Amino acid sequence: MSMRGIVIHAPKDLRVEDIATVPLEPHDVRVRIEAGGICGSDLHYYHRGGFGTVRLKEPMVLGHEIAGTIDEVGSGVSGLSLGMRVVVNPSRPCNECRYCRAGQRNQCLEMRFMGSAMRFPHVQGGFRQIVTSDEGQAIPIASTVTMQEAAMAEPLAVCLHAARQAGSLLGAKVLVTGCGPIGTLAVLTARYGGAAEIVATDVSAYPLSVAARVGASRTINVAAEPQALTPYAKDKGTFDVLIEASGNEAALRGALEAVRPGGIVVQLGLGGDMTLPINVIVAKDLQLRGSFRFDEEFRLAVDLMGKGLIDVKPVLSQTLPFERAVEAFDLASDRSRAMKVQLAF
Amino acid sequence: MSMRGIVIHAPKDLRVEDIATVPLEPHDVRVRIEAGGICGSDLHYYHRGGFGTVRLKEPMVLGHEIAGTIDEVGSGVSGLSLGMRVVVNPSRPCNECRYCRAGQRNQCLEMRFMGSAMRFPHVQGGFRQIVTSDEGQAIPIASTVTMQEAAMAEPLAVCLHAARQAGSLLGAKVLVTGCGPIGTLAVLTARYGGAAEIVATDVSAYPLSVAARVGASRTINVAAEPQALTPYAKDKGTFDVLIEASGNEAALRGALEAVRPGGIVVQLGLGGDMTLPINVIVAKDLQLRGSFRFDEEFRLAVDLMGKGLIDVKPVLSQTLPFERAVEAFDLASDRSRAMKVQLAF
Amino acid sequence: MSMRGIVIHAPKDLRVEDIATVPLEPHDVRVRIEAGGICGSDLHYYHRGGFGTVRLKEPMVLGHEIAGTIDEVGSGVSGLSLGMRVVVNPSRPCNECRYCRAGQRNQCLEMRFMGSAMRFPHVQGGFRQIVTSDEGQAIPIASTVTMQEAAMAEPLAVCLHAARQAGSLLGAKVLVTGCGPIGTLAVLTARYGGAAEIVATDVSAYPLSVAARVGASRTINVAAEPQALTPYAKDKGTFDVLIEASGNEAALRGALEAVRPGGIVVQLGLGGDMTLPINVIVAKDLQLRGSFRFDEEFRLAVDLMGKGLIDVKPVLSQTLPFERAVEAFDLASDRSRAMKVQLAF
Amino acid sequence: MSMRGIVIHAPKDLRVEDIATVPLEPHDVRVRIEAGGICGSDLHYYHRGGFGTVRLKEPMVLGHEIAGTIDEVGSGVSGLSLGMRVVVNPSRPCNECRYCRAGQRNQCLEMRFMGSAMRFPHVQGGFRQIVTSDEGQAIPIASTVTMQEAAMAEPLAVCLHAARQAGSLLGAKVLVTGCGPIGTLAVLTARYGGAAEIVATDVSAYPLSVAARVGASRTINVAAEPQALTPYAKDKGTFDVLIEASGNEAALRGALEAVRPGGIVVQLGLGGDMTLPINVIVAKDLQLRGSFRFDEEFRLAVDLMGKGLIDVKPVLSQTLPFERAVEAFDLASDRSRAMKVQLAF
Repeated sequence: MSMRGIVIHAPKDLRVEDIATVPLEPHDVRVRIEAGGICGSDLHYYHRGGFGTVRLKEPMVLGHEIAGTIDEVGSGVSGLSLGMRVVVNPSRPCNECRYCRAGQRNQCLEMRFMGSAMRFPHVQGGFRQIVTSDEGQAIPIASTVTMQEAAMAEPLAVCLHAARQAGSLLGAKVLVTGCGPIGTLAVLTARYGGAAEIVATDVSAYPLSVAARVGASRTINVAAEPQALTPYAKDKGTFDVLIEASGNEAALRGALEAVRPGGIVVQLGLGGDMTLPINVIVAKDLQLRGSFRFDEEFRLAVDLMGKGLIDVKPVLSQTLPFERAVEAFDLASDRSRAMKVQLAF
Repeated sequence: MSMRGIVIHAPKDLRVEDIATVPLEPHDVRVRIEAGGICGSDLHYYHRGGFGTVRLKEPMVLGHEIAGTIDEVGSGVSGLSLGMRVVVNPSRPCNECRYCRAGQRNQCLEMRFMGSAMRFPHVQGGFRQIVTSDEGQAIPIASTVTMQEAAMAEPLAVCLHAARQAGSLLGAKVLVTGCGPIGTLAVLTARYGGAAEIVATDVSAYPLSVAARVGASRTINVAAEPQALTPYAKDKGTFDVLIEASGNEAALRGALEAVRPGGIVVQLGLGGDMTLPINVIVAKDLQLRGSFRFDEEFRLAVDLMGKGLIDVKPVLSQTLPFERAVEAFDLASDRSRAMKVQLAF
Repeated sequence: MSMRGIVIHAPKDLRVEDIATVPLEPHDVRVRIEAGGICGSDLHYYHRGGFGTVRLKEPMVLGHEIAGTIDEVGSGVSGLSLGMRVVVNPSRPCNECRYCRAGQRNQCLEMRFMGSAMRFPHVQGGFRQIVTSDEGQAIPIASTVTMQEAAMAEPLAVCLHAARQAGSLLGAKVLVTGCGPIGTLAVLTARYGGAAEIVATDVSAYPLSVAARVGASRTINVAAEPQALTPYAKDKGTFDVLIEASGNEAALRGALEAVRPGGIVVQLGLGGDMTLPINVIVAKDLQLRGSFRFDEEFRLAVDLMGKGLIDVKPVLSQTLPFERAVEAFDLASDRSRAMKVQLAF
Repeated sequence: MSMRGIVIHAPKDLRVEDIATVPLEPHDVRVRIEAGGICGSDLHYYHRGGFGTVRLKEPMVLGHEIAGTIDEVGSGVSGLSLGMRVVVNPSRPCNECRYCRAGQRNQCLEMRFMGSAMRFPHVQGGFRQIVTSDEGQAIPIASTVTMQEAAMAEPLAVCLHAARQAGSLLGAKVLVTGCGPIGTLAVLTARYGGAAEIVATDVSAYPLSVAARVGASRTINVAAEPQALTPYAKDKGTFDVLIEASGNEAALRGALEAVRPGGIVVQLGLGGDMTLPINVIVAKDLQLRGSFRFDEEFRLAVDLMGKGLIDVKPVLSQTLPFERAVEAFDLASDRSRAMKVQLAF
């Protein structure tokens, strides 16, 4: 048995091709995928074959933001049945290593994360017609949540994890640098978490317009207004929290000046090496906190969308049929007109 | 009236010369200085005329680690009297600005810190025969504490502040990179705070021998054994806390690999710009926390020494008469044979 | 010069009578009061002459939830002018004691809090036609905020302080016991702070209906359904956070069973001695955290209402002319039909 | 096969009798017990048949502070071998329930804790000649650690967990109420964790003398000097942290007055219902934190003793042969002359 999937072979060599069906184990389900969101890491594989030390060493199915309908259920599965609408959690920790045991499952030493080249052989991804996953990874969604929204659970979970790294946002003044899908969801999350003021920056008008729709108090195009953050740097800074989602060194450097002493910088953007003004971090007692993926926040993301407490629809910009994957990836790479681009399967 | 003091005029131009006595205000005391410790920032002024954006713009008396005996008491002073042995807290926050009001006095917008060129006119320092200070800055010391030890309250307070940035050290595995006086006192503080294991690194044998005396479980000369930290990087890292006291980019980069996911890096060393592997900080959920000076930790440092709970004597390496200040500064700059060098007045 | 004010002389002896005008100091303003909210502590004085060890020892003007328009400005005042609409912060810490210096101003040793019998002579309150206050206590309000809403800044600040005691509420399951004005504002605050689920309990239908309007996911009348919390106690408990606003021992005891291990209980309700199951607190590693008044949260409350981020209107139930104060106090004491009762001046 | 063990049948009915050997599973080891410490909960079973809702329903071998030598090794065991000296961790969480998964293993829903009547059938204890345990529960000890010291790992772990509940103790002023073995080890732990001042109270002279030996700055016999804590209550209180280890309501009430606003109370003592002054907890923003058993702190306790960083010897008061168990239990119940009483097997 085979199906169609989206396979990256090398930088710029993305193909829609036949791939084999994965056998169904007793505790597995098969999910007929309907929506798949293109993530920044998918784009890194597409454009550059990876990021940092993570490099493509064999062809890999991309994709880890996927939702669909259960099509087949293993003999040992309980609580899930045919026809259920689910989102697939791409994260599969071992539950045995010392990090899993310590409640840090996102740091699992044996993590199997869909569509990631961190391990070899690579863990194949979810941009395919049928995904076979462990029952624990298939999370039912509310009837009010569309497949497109459900597929946003993964990036939303990333931002909920980031918000937790920041501590309470209630009443906080928050700066978000970089309004790609992650930065925009960070704005939405800060708004949901009770921030008093959210300033969002980017170098392009379109993403800023989306950030404004999901809760930014003010948006700044730092390409057009390079000095616009300067007033926030007065008296050692204004913002309690900076969420850095651009992965851009200049963005982070500029923003550090605007963070108040003792403030928290949550770094989401991956940008390789960055040259940072350590003296500013020291002299202002700043805390730069990395934020990596998510753990239980995935279920929380599904829960909050299901209850209607968080609405990700403004972040969905375009959907293309999966057969036009190359076009979709190119579109997703154009931040001037695309926010979250999804594939329909 | 005048006295002798140690004045920096320009890089390498350090002079022992006559300076004027400061008038005594009603809430001031005059302290006849007996011991003054040479700090890393004093050496920065001596060798390079400053650090980062802080630059010498006029002659300045150096020194902010000073202890002595009260010689004269203003009319409005209570609780202090002639002949009392005191250490002078070089930090004078305004108590009015928003940071003072928020309990972040080390971030005071109007901070007057002795022997610092951050403001202009510079705040003159304490390497002089008589220091006039506000009564609140003169802290009595126990009879069991020598003047030399008392003058260590300031760097010890810096390390107590750093330890607080780290959270509880009880049972922690701690790595300290850089064993100058601050790194060595960080080892001592981590030992006092109940660390389970303390590994200290440096590029020189002498400071490591002092670190071992004050509580390091293991010392590593990373110049001689560049790979010695590698085993600690296994399975994503070992140390709960890294205290970075070298200000050296290579030291920090290497050490990050050895910090466990979710671990805390307290940055004490000032090193200007550093190029850091942001992907490591993100992927391991690390927290890089700056630590700047101290506040109430100064009184705590005096208290802990007074109670015999902390013993800084192993960190005191040489004392020279203040008239030989240039020789003392050169000696303090030679990490292969000097730890804390003090001047006798 | 005199004016009319509301003075408590003894339990049940509340009078509207002439009171003297307070002299205007250079840094004072006079505020012509328009709205004044009746607080639970006002009711304690009215019904019982105080609470705990705080007892009425002389006649006292009640009231500390007040807003109005600036009528006169002292010679040294800057930033405030005639006609400005303001809410008066009833809290006046000394800014000098050790708690003020540590950023714990709500714990000030010399606190002067309007309409409180904690000190003697008592600090007179704000239920009067003209209040003279320090300029720092008069906070301008946005033009979109009514006087009635502005007078809610004080109880809202109490709930923002409580929320901060709880840590981040983002994604939390929250139980609120007791839906008087404070409990209801706690629900509203938990909703604003991003709780995932909020269950509110009371013994009366009306307050629960208000709690539902401001964001409770579910309301439980524990008088009608005494076992309704039992399912939440399964597997050691469900709620991450309990905000106890009833001051009722039975409410707290029952709710403790429903809090998950490691959960946080924020105690707002004052209820004198309570007999608690310490074994439950110990065996579940629970944290019972007291929450007292507020500090900077007052300005935050004003800011959040001004930005339209928090809407307190559903909590306002009745307004009576101040001349009918006794009637208003009796109404405010009837939780079956009144939430926040205010006086118009 | 059988052996001798110490079995509680009913209050005051403690017998040394034959008990059956437990079969050896592949991942089990058999440990020939040499030292067993009598804990407060053992005494509760002995005197009252249990505590709170935990009641003896069938005969149960007591004991959970045990150390000995490995005598037999299951076929699947790795890393342990015959003759190894070990301490047995009495705690066996399931590693599967939601608390285990969240890193709160001490809250495991399926916890099997040796010598505890919480479950039925009860989990049999370790006061027996041979204990069969899972390999993961047998922790090798350093050659420098005696069996008697090793058997202290369990109560020491309890106190390390309590210290972690308190946050950093570095520089803290700590009050410990109740100097039984747990309170005394709490003093020792606070000293190890860097407290600046430790005041210990009890109603008996002997335990206070031990508390002084392990690090108390001051000891107070509150039976002899009932007002001795009063000066610490000045200006709202002195202590940053209170560790309550008496389980006595009067002790806790009195001590609350001496805790500074915002201070932390760690409750270790189990005392059933207690009537507490909730107004004090609220008005001072206090945090009352329960502390239950331990998790990873067990290994930490073993590690710290092995490295010579913590010395529990002063807490060991008497050792009796296990055949004289009744006499030992009576002795352990007499706080005027016994601290930790152990049995030799």
